[in-house]
Amino acid sequence: MKTLHVDLGTRSYPIHIGTGLLDDSELIRPHIQGQEVMVVTNETIAPLYLERTLALLDGYDVATVILPDGEQYKTLDTLNLVFDALLEKHFTRRCTLIALGGGVIGDITGYAAASYQRGVNFIQIPTTLLAQVDSSVGGKTGVNHALGKNMIGAFHQPQCVIADTETLNTLDDRQLSAGLAEIIKYGLINDADFFEWLEQNMPSLLSRDPDALAYAIERSCHDKAEIVAADERESGVRALLNLGHTFGHAIETGTGYGNWLHGEAVGCGMWMAAELSHQHGWFTQTELDRTRDIIEKAKLPIQPPTSMNSDQFLDIMAVDKKNLEKKIRLILMKGIGKSFISDDFDNTLLKELLEKNIAQAKQE
Amino acid sequence: MKTLHVDLGTRSYPIHIGTGLLDDSELIRPHIQGQEVMVVTNETIAPLYLERTLALLDGYDVATVILPDGEQYKTLDTLNLVFDALLEKHFTRRCTLIALGGGVIGDITGYAAASYQRGVNFIQIPTTLLAQVDSSVGGKTGVNHALGKNMIGAFHQPQCVIADTETLNTLDDRQLSAGLAEIIKYGLINDADFFEWLEQNMPSLLSRDPDALAYAIERSCHDKAEIVAADERESGVRALLNLGHTFGHAIETGTGYGNWLHGEAVGCGMWMAAELSHQHGWFTQTELDRTRDIIEKAKLPIQPPTSMNSDQFLDIMAVDKKNLEKKIRLILMKGIGKSFISDDFDNTLLKELLEKNIAQAKQE
Repeated sequence: MKTLHVDLGTRSYPIHIGTGLLDDSELIRPHIQGQEVMVVTNETIAPLYLERTLALLDGYDVATVILPDGEQYKTLDTLNLVFDALLEKHFTRRCTLIALGGGVIGDITGYAAASYQRGVNFIQIPTTLLAQVDSSVGGKTGVNHALGKNMIGAFHQPQCVIADTETLNTLDDRQLSAGLAEIIKYGLINDADFFEWLEQNMPSLLSRDPDALAYAIERSCHDKAEIVAADERESGVRALLNLGHTFGHAIETGTGYGNWLHGEAVGCGMWMAAELSHQHGWFTQTELDRTRDIIEKAKLPIQPPTSMNSDQFLDIMAVDKKNLEKKIRLILMKGIGKSFISDDFDNTLLKELLEKNIAQAKQE
Repeated sequence: MKTLHVDLGTRSYPIHIGTGLLDDSELIRPHIQGQEVMVVTNETIAPLYLERTLALLDGYDVATVILPDGEQYKTLDTLNLVFDALLEKHFTRRCTLIALGGGVIGDITGYAAASYQRGVNFIQIPTTLLAQVDSSVGGKTGVNHALGKNMIGAFHQPQCVIADTETLNTLDDRQLSAGLAEIIKYGLINDADFFEWLEQNMPSLLSRDPDALAYAIERSCHDKAEIVAADERESGVRALLNLGHTFGHAIETGTGYGNWLHGEAVGCGMWMAAELSHQHGWFTQTELDRTRDIIEKAKLPIQPPTSMNSDQFLDIMAVDKKNLEKKIRLILMKGIGKSFISDDFDNTLLKELLEKNIAQAKQE
């Protein structure tokens, strides 16, 4: 087992990464302050891991909420189901919520914990690759709104994160690839060495080699934790973690939540960010080719949805959280591992890029 | 004009109290960082004060949301109307929300500000006595749940509070009395001199003497600001501000939000807290009589709703935010101005007290 620490003063917490951690109750019990524990999970994960999780919690006053599975359920209405359960059980401010599942479960549970009685503790047990490398780390919680993804939420740090890599064995291939998108992202943002390692080891990751996966998860969490520690509430450098996400969120919102997986949308978004960077002369043809290559090798889509047009993209991108005063801001790149935030790009090029990519998608 | 400061480090802010402040744009404009301003108000307040508020905001990109009026609308659904408006206008993280109205508007708007894009700025313009002396100060924001009042929310401090005492001229008598309940509360909690002043000046307050009102508001805000500065997130002394509220929230929840005004429920709750304190020998008969007297002089109800029984009271009180591990905690008194938090009272006495008061209410 490896343990990383996210360094946030009084809100610091450990991330444990390893195999079989779901059988080790000593990892979780020190982080539960009272007697009341609510496990929040979904219909897919409950039959697989709920029983083992409950076995960790012997002796506590434990309740469970099982939510429907999918990004389309990351809403205020689903959030309210968690509040219903907490209030029906008369749970107090000293209760602890446990998020057992992927990114959607983590985001909803974290936001429920931020909001219930104005704030209670929570613990993340991420069971997808995407949640293990991204959404369970950093304290961003929230739900979607029909007009924009993750538009309602809170910064609320967990007490600890327990990433058991064995849970990835039950992940379907599409979910595995979605997680790889966020892993590739860390290479592109500021870790060129990791990007090279990924170029060499993508086949091992796709065949679920445990050592390769453990290394990729650890390095991703390390890279993310460093950025989060420097800028917890995203007033600066943390925005870099949004590489590919402005395009990606537009795809998720525009096609209807739940049709594209978050990681798939981010994969396509990173490609468009790379291409836009190339068109401005900031990103070489070789770097562009390497980016396309690794996204395709991870079995992620390059092409945007044919159901969308460029105006729809731009409309949704105009409500992104990074934007200031109505100007779209994007994470672009001046090389692999050299990302930066910019609202100083050519809007005409952006529109043409969207149109070209959508047209190409339609041809195929 | 008087200005008080709530001392919370980087989250400190001023409370301006005086007449005609709604015509002074220099109070509000320094606290707006970007160009985007959303005024949130309700159907009662909009015809009275919206135009004057908009006049303060000349030159900004201003939008308005008008919500229905009443505690029964302090819900996640109404909150979502604010998010709808913000997203339809493409408002960014640099927007500022302005709460123009009473406690319900302040609580919803503050929580919307805490949650929109994980946190934006907001300003309180309280227009009821209750909001001017209580809910607009201290950063408690949130909405109700069918199973418990204020159970969903966040601590989120405003940029400033502007309390124009002239707005109280349009308040109906019932709303005025509801505000007086919270004012009496500060005397009972820890300010015996203020309690005496209130005993002497209640007629002036009821006849809306401007000087008496201004003094009572200023002293209440001062007393509250001191407690909030000592314990922003209610891990200790701040719970004292809940005097009368455990009983009061049970009344509001049990009779259906919007039937009893918050201050009315708190008035009756303070009476029951005083009586329970007396029954334990902590509060003398004279102190009990003085408490009953001042609540009645403020034209507030002493008797609980006849539609509720004691089990219903106890059931709702069991989900109060102050409770730890299933035990009801109450704010009780060892004298006027000497309140304390306690879970060490006689539960049988509590149940008998509820039954006696409900029976008396039914007789009349």
